Amino acid sequence: MSHNTFGHLFRVTTWGESHGPALGCVVDGCPPGLPLDEAFIQQFLDKRRPGTSRFVTQRQEPDAVKILSGVFEDDRTGGPVTTGTPISLMVENTDQRSKDYGEIRDRYRPGHADYPYDAKYGVRDYRGGGRSSARETAARVAAGAVARRALGDGIVIRGAVVQIGPHAINRDNWNWDIVEDNPFWCPDADMVPRWEEFLDATRKAGSSTGAVVEVQASGVPAGWGAPIYGKLDGELAGAMMSINAVKGVEIGAGFGAASLSGEENADQMRAGNDGPLFLSNNNGGVAGGISTGQDVIVRIAIKPTSSILNEVQSVTRDGENVDVRTKGRHDPCVGIRAVPVAEAMMACVLADQKLRHRGQTGR
Amino acid sequence: MSHNTFGHLFRVTTWGESHGPALGCVVDGCPPGLPLDEAFIQQFLDKRRPGTSRFVTQRQEPDAVKILSGVFEDDRTGGPVTTGTPISLMVENTDQRSKDYGEIRDRYRPGHADYPYDAKYGVRDYRGGGRSSARETAARVAAGAVARRALGDGIVIRGAVVQIGPHAINRDNWNWDIVEDNPFWCPDADMVPRWEEFLDATRKAGSSTGAVVEVQASGVPAGWGAPIYGKLDGELAGAMMSINAVKGVEIGAGFGAASLSGEENADQMRAGNDGPLFLSNNNGGVAGGISTGQDVIVRIAIKPTSSILNEVQSVTRDGENVDVRTKGRHDPCVGIRAVPVAEAMMACVLADQKLRHRGQTGR
Amino acid sequence: MSHNTFGHLFRVTTWGESHGPALGCVVDGCPPGLPLDEAFIQQFLDKRRPGTSRFVTQRQEPDAVKILSGVFEDDRTGGPVTTGTPISLMVENTDQRSKDYGEIRDRYRPGHADYPYDAKYGVRDYRGGGRSSARETAARVAAGAVARRALGDGIVIRGAVVQIGPHAINRDNWNWDIVEDNPFWCPDADMVPRWEEFLDATRKAGSSTGAVVEVQASGVPAGWGAPIYGKLDGELAGAMMSINAVKGVEIGAGFGAASLSGEENADQMRAGNDGPLFLSNNNGGVAGGISTGQDVIVRIAIKPTSSILNEVQSVTRDGENVDVRTKGRHDPCVGIRAVPVAEAMMACVLADQKLRHRGQTGR
Amino acid sequence: MSHNTFGHLFRVTTWGESHGPALGCVVDGCPPGLPLDEAFIQQFLDKRRPGTSRFVTQRQEPDAVKILSGVFEDDRTGGPVTTGTPISLMVENTDQRSKDYGEIRDRYRPGHADYPYDAKYGVRDYRGGGRSSARETAARVAAGAVARRALGDGIVIRGAVVQIGPHAINRDNWNWDIVEDNPFWCPDADMVPRWEEFLDATRKAGSSTGAVVEVQASGVPAGWGAPIYGKLDGELAGAMMSINAVKGVEIGAGFGAASLSGEENADQMRAGNDGPLFLSNNNGGVAGGISTGQDVIVRIAIKPTSSILNEVQSVTRDGENVDVRTKGRHDPCVGIRAVPVAEAMMACVLADQKLRHRGQTGR
Repeated sequence: MSHNTFGHLFRVTTWGESHGPALGCVVDGCPPGLPLDEAFIQQFLDKRRPGTSRFVTQRQEPDAVKILSGVFEDDRTGGPVTTGTPISLMVENTDQRSKDYGEIRDRYRPGHADYPYDAKYGVRDYRGGGRSSARETAARVAAGAVARRALGDGIVIRGAVVQIGPHAINRDNWNWDIVEDNPFWCPDADMVPRWEEFLDATRKAGSSTGAVVEVQASGVPAGWGAPIYGKLDGELAGAMMSINAVKGVEIGAGFGAASLSGEENADQMRAGNDGPLFLSNNNGGVAGGISTGQDVIVRIAIKPTSSILNEVQSVTRDGENVDVRTKGRHDPCVGIRAVPVAEAMMACVLADQKLRHRGQTGR
Repeated sequence: MSHNTFGHLFRVTTWGESHGPALGCVVDGCPPGLPLDEAFIQQFLDKRRPGTSRFVTQRQEPDAVKILSGVFEDDRTGGPVTTGTPISLMVENTDQRSKDYGEIRDRYRPGHADYPYDAKYGVRDYRGGGRSSARETAARVAAGAVARRALGDGIVIRGAVVQIGPHAINRDNWNWDIVEDNPFWCPDADMVPRWEEFLDATRKAGSSTGAVVEVQASGVPAGWGAPIYGKLDGELAGAMMSINAVKGVEIGAGFGAASLSGEENADQMRAGNDGPLFLSNNNGGVAGGISTGQDVIVRIAIKPTSSILNEVQSVTRDGENVDVRTKGRHDPCVGIRAVPVAEAMMACVLADQKLRHRGQTGR
Repeated sequence: MSHNTFGHLFRVTTWGESHGPALGCVVDGCPPGLPLDEAFIQQFLDKRRPGTSRFVTQRQEPDAVKILSGVFEDDRTGGPVTTGTPISLMVENTDQRSKDYGEIRDRYRPGHADYPYDAKYGVRDYRGGGRSSARETAARVAAGAVARRALGDGIVIRGAVVQIGPHAINRDNWNWDIVEDNPFWCPDADMVPRWEEFLDATRKAGSSTGAVVEVQASGVPAGWGAPIYGKLDGELAGAMMSINAVKGVEIGAGFGAASLSGEENADQMRAGNDGPLFLSNNNGGVAGGISTGQDVIVRIAIKPTSSILNEVQSVTRDGENVDVRTKGRHDPCVGIRAVPVAEAMMACVLADQKLRHRGQTGR
Repeated sequence: MSHNTFGHLFRVTTWGESHGPALGCVVDGCPPGLPLDEAFIQQFLDKRRPGTSRFVTQRQEPDAVKILSGVFEDDRTGGPVTTGTPISLMVENTDQRSKDYGEIRDRYRPGHADYPYDAKYGVRDYRGGGRSSARETAARVAAGAVARRALGDGIVIRGAVVQIGPHAINRDNWNWDIVEDNPFWCPDADMVPRWEEFLDATRKAGSSTGAVVEVQASGVPAGWGAPIYGKLDGELAGAMMSINAVKGVEIGAGFGAASLSGEENADQMRAGNDGPLFLSNNNGGVAGGISTGQDVIVRIAIKPTSSILNEVQSVTRDGENVDVRTKGRHDPCVGIRAVPVAEAMMACVLADQKLRHRGQTGR
């Protein structure tokens, strides 16, 4: 993780601003010989795409990905496969209504990166937040698709929203089958109508709300992770916290572990056919920074969208007081569209750890 | 963050096992000309040292640090200053009762890294957890002392325990003045006797408990952070999650932000003499991955010590069921000794961001 | 330097194949506020562009660069300036006669990377050498233009060809004024007609020839370099050796230093107004891996173009003997077009060292 | 390669000054399960040790290495093996006659790093050159021993001196069997008495001389290397140039390739049983930055020792003219002791490339 690149052997560098001509990424270090075409990547971008329901921003972007390098026809199948060289992916911006942003040129929107970018760089592309816009996450999702290829079909990564505003799901109702059938990636059927109602009210009030997203990876073998400072959970935490609006990350029992006793928290084991069988998963699939073979489980807290219609107090670049209402098209709850992004970060971190583990141990 | 090194310009590499001859670190990239001697570093190690109260492990280690390289007499003062070359720090292990660990040679302790280390490497130093032991954090604390020199006196970093087991402090009672005067680094005087009682009971029960630690850094100027994948909060999250037993990290309002509305969460601003004045700090001093000039605030969740006297179910290396009781000397609540470690990680991350910011912007 | 990225604070990642749709780079870490437009970058690409004389490949490529991100209008001037965010640069390929390469699909061209790429990856884009083509250097030249902005006008970087085949220039004749006025970047007027004759004969013979290129940087202050493993000369050596066809790198007196005595080699000093005055520059501007304030001087040896019309013995992918003649459009002496590439690598290495030095020392 | 660390998966961080209490390194990322004890490492340090003949410095250092971490008893053999955790190696300094250096405290020795270190850091450990002393290479040699373990016995790395002053060996006489039997690592028996005579004269004259060293690695499979900016030859060049006093690096035909025609330089191939058979090795075992399966061949030019008894002109820190004679104990030709260092760098670079290759491709 360094500026705009993350990963060590599976490395992703992203670029692009919200209202520039395009955005994209370079994926370096992907193993060769893996099938990869635009259609495969596109399905993940479509999941993140704006404008798919009334609960997300109405900006219309096809988000069509182009592969500019790194794949070539396979000798045997003739289909496109990775060649081991850098994979350059590009998404052109088409619906940039930059004029919406003219009035924020000289004022700092609370909760946004406007002020700190100015403090850091002294110059900024204010249109739509420029580089700090969540549009950058389209590049992450594209990279995540490549990472899934590097991981192979044996590892399944999927995410869900588990809380919107104060309304958390009942985990006993968890049903992966319904997650793709509602606009919230909600795994609890009972919660869907409540969130619908809550978000409609939030939108009408010109406000926004926070959320919690959970991502799970199954099929991860025991042994991945690069202790001490490249621990699997450490890298997941860094990767997740780098997603726009994320303010918290927890693994397994997470903050709940603080209240547990040693006996309650211990993931006890019994002999299994293929390594230990764990009787619980408070560790979230990671101990000592290394995967245990259980599902890797991460949750992230996402703050309410900072762009709201309601007026908030702020200052101008010139240091004058001003009140700000953010027009433009925004998500009332950015947590929803964070699901494919968090899945992508999980995929990228795991792909990198897989390659590093293989490099060090030959396994 | 890569294997056993973290940081980019201010880089720390740690080494050593719990029961090997010594442990230490190499701090590379520290600016030259800063006063640094063993006494300065020792005070932070003393804060983390075991055996200081009945609430922490009774292992007796002087944890005396030696500076092996990277300092030399200053031309003017004659006192030792950093030279810009790598600073090698070493702490010798003296009280290794390795025999205590003979019986865990062939069995996996639940919650510990025993099994995943074996799955990863096929060989492990089982004595006291080897490399996965929290003794490694002594090296972090030593590095953190150097980082404080790199940051200068204008930046103050301090931590406290804010929850032990289910007992959280009342933030309205927060008093930094008492933090060093009780064995828990507790900022709430009312809570001290309750934690004392709770931990005594926990110890007697042969059990352990989790905790939440908060670290604050004041004096950080606006503009530090390296978006997108080297964000200040992203790096803090990765660094904190790399500490032993940490299962969650949150910045500012953290998981609480999920329940807030956009208006509640917005850190509104008014014109100030030296940049904006913020009316709240839900962002925890970071927006868009860059510092805002407010206090940087991080909380971490620490799971209960996995080493407990009570019997838990486990398996042997040979795949047989076994029950495990962990004898040896252990902390009933590792969260307490995590305070100086979390402070050190904050210091190292900030020092690195300071140098990177200065490198990129000249400011 | 890692796979397809080089640099630490000023980081360049390149991507693209010879006959793919495009190639490009992402420059990350460039300081903000520097004027940068496509015309500025284009002038360096034009210097490297093919088809400019009969002594270089006749492939016709406009090599028009596009800036896709990282610049925005300056508040004061309104002109485009860097914003501190990643600068994505793209050059589209237009004249890909891929059919020329059909016959090398299944055979390894001696001296080329065909066989080792296959041995490494098991799949390769054989068209024009794919990723191993010197077309990749267009991206380096574009990045080098950005690096020059990061260095500022006080540092002047320029290169020349000092040897073609066995014909080396007379250094006493060195004249920078004529370098841009002949097709060889030759600083010795007497040598121009001899190289013309030699290269015409080489081309007619269906052969190719090697060369030596020298790059000088003036205005570099004393103190840049990151010892021990990020030394200025070490990084220059790595960067230069990464250029296609380069087989040797030397700094200052280079291999000639092996024959010198200690007195001859010592760059003796006399007191100057602004630091020491050196009486010679055998060190090539670098001592102990750190710049001395003298001109930084690097020479690189470039092997003869491997693609020649004359038949050479080789094998097929299936392990059959075969004779290979390389048709297509090629440079009889790739050393000529290596000049702007070597200049660009010098610029990138220096820009990175400048930022790292500033980060560590504040100077 | 970054400051004091090099390598990506096989990472080496060195520390220590010439006259500090000790020097050492941390080797991170070494595969687990490899036999490693102090005796194995010591044999390589002994090869580099000073005081072994009248042609090297008379400083007496046992250079006894200690392993401080990263090895543990093997389950099966009981012998020490690597555990996959950081290997900390330390060599204590014992014969530091610092008083010899008192007089260079305030003056810059020509050819040394005295002035640039001062220009960079503003403070320096002047004793014996401090961090810029070639004593640092003891740590490299220790790390190189670990790298040889990571490479396994199938890869043989060995070096020789091929030129001292103007006297180059006759390659037709090359005989590896005599290399360890003369004090120069000379492979040409006829050259040994000439070098003896030449170096005796050089010493008597109070002068010093340069040299050329060649290192060869056999057994390297085709396919190692990480193009474009982690090429095998690029990393070798960077690593070799980082050795003290090295001013040039060449691979295979090197600078000689500039004078060759395409036909002469082409390493033609014929079908072999196990990949192509090459008819020559002008590429030095690397094409396109990737190993070809041939011997990897590198030569380095080493400048004459800068420390000479004869007077040279210089300046003081205060900017006064001064004449400098370097007393103390020095090598008349540092090229001799560079042999084990260059071998070690070759081993480290290859070990890193092996792990990276395995990580990316699974082979």
